[in-house]
Amino acid sequence: MKPIINIIKIGGHLIQESEQLEIALDQFSKIKGPKILIHGGGRSANQMLQALNIEPQMIDGRRITDAATLKIVTMVYAGLVNKKIVSQLQSKGCNALGLSGTDGNLILAKKREIKKIDYGFTGDIIAINNQFLEQLIQKNISPVCCAITHDGKGQLLNTNADTIAASIAKALTKKFQVRLKFCFEKSGVCRNPNLESSLIKQLSFTNYQNLIDEKIITDGMIPKLDMAFDALNQQVKAVSICGLNAINNPDAVQTHLVL
Amino acid sequence: MKPIINIIKIGGHLIQESEQLEIALDQFSKIKGPKILIHGGGRSANQMLQALNIEPQMIDGRRITDAATLKIVTMVYAGLVNKKIVSQLQSKGCNALGLSGTDGNLILAKKREIKKIDYGFTGDIIAINNQFLEQLIQKNISPVCCAITHDGKGQLLNTNADTIAASIAKALTKKFQVRLKFCFEKSGVCRNPNLESSLIKQLSFTNYQNLIDEKIITDGMIPKLDMAFDALNQQVKAVSICGLNAINNPDAVQTHLVL
Repeated sequence: MKPIINIIKIGGHLIQESEQLEIALDQFSKIKGPKILIHGGGRSANQMLQALNIEPQMIDGRRITDAATLKIVTMVYAGLVNKKIVSQLQSKGCNALGLSGTDGNLILAKKREIKKIDYGFTGDIIAINNQFLEQLIQKNISPVCCAITHDGKGQLLNTNADTIAASIAKALTKKFQVRLKFCFEKSGVCRNPNLESSLIKQLSFTNYQNLIDEKIITDGMIPKLDMAFDALNQQVKAVSICGLNAINNPDAVQTHLVL
Repeated sequence: MKPIINIIKIGGHLIQESEQLEIALDQFSKIKGPKILIHGGGRSANQMLQALNIEPQMIDGRRITDAATLKIVTMVYAGLVNKKIVSQLQSKGCNALGLSGTDGNLILAKKREIKKIDYGFTGDIIAINNQFLEQLIQKNISPVCCAITHDGKGQLLNTNADTIAASIAKALTKKFQVRLKFCFEKSGVCRNPNLESSLIKQLSFTNYQNLIDEKIITDGMIPKLDMAFDALNQQVKAVSICGLNAINNPDAVQTHLVL
């Protein structure tokens, strides 16, 4: 029987608000056994861009990364946010190690081809170095991965953190029973975003398609769920969309994806 | 016989100027056997501080690190500079891994006590996790360490890169014959800073003391050389002050320290 690994992606307001982040990291540090944390940092990057008079550019929830923006997101994701998280986890007795995709050649990507939109220095993932992750996990180290990748030729690239989480999850299925959780400021996917009681506890792919047609699931939630269902289709054992109270509590109310 | 490890500290203009950095990293990537790179990033941090209207504060070549400055140096050292170096090394076939002192609990430090000067979030090193470094080196990974440490209680701290290099060198002497090189924009210590031909090829501690008295060695060079002699006194096999052409060439003209 393969060992269980928990892969937790945190994003949205969680990163931004110190108290929420503290709870999330506390929960993460208490997870028993192998675990990996993946984080975004979107709003912090926007704040820094604005402080430096660079206008953030987004299309469909995806950032357009020009050279100046890449510099800032590298600083904010791999520097500020990543090291803050790692130092807090260390203080909670979790032996965390911060990683970008260039460290140990963790995530090889290629610059997205220009079709309708030029995403700039945005990277699409080619390969995950699962052997490196497995070596770290064997040493009881918990990798903390930020949303920066590289092309192997010296170019850093900006890659969506949800995509990184799903790709790492898929890459580890040979050796582990992978549980993947996308955590954000809500408890899961809701029919009415303002009503927690409308949370969908089990979401099937057919249901999901219907909810897109009904415009109940929209915008940034669509690529996230596409990725989540793809992971579930490719041997990831369990995938859910959840709030921070579900990070270390399987019984917490959340949206479980089912095939 | 213990294996040789090369510990290279790069700083000063080397970090700032792309062409110089490229040569330094090319040389580093060609070193055979275990190796560790330690880097500063001072001028980049000052540029970012100025862009954000924060005035850099220095006393005797040491930075005063208030909360806003800590945020910037963490971003610049652990994010921007560290990931740029790691991605360039990866492109040269060197399996580099970027680390701050909080990653894998690499460097535990404590906030400097306030005596005459309040250095703010400046950390004095308590312990190096040499076991972690040894594990990485066993896997043919080359650690690339930036000048950020932590106190184990969730606080990041700013620590001088020369001090980090010397501390890591000393911590690895049990398992390795350690060669420590402090590389900067000149070829070594010169009697006349404008005349490369005045380079001192061998510098003994007595000589060094005399040159301080004669005001030939001054300012930031003094803490660097104090640290370098301390390392030599504590079982580090060879210590030199050199330029980038000496990174992978033991015969290059440089200043070798002798007891």
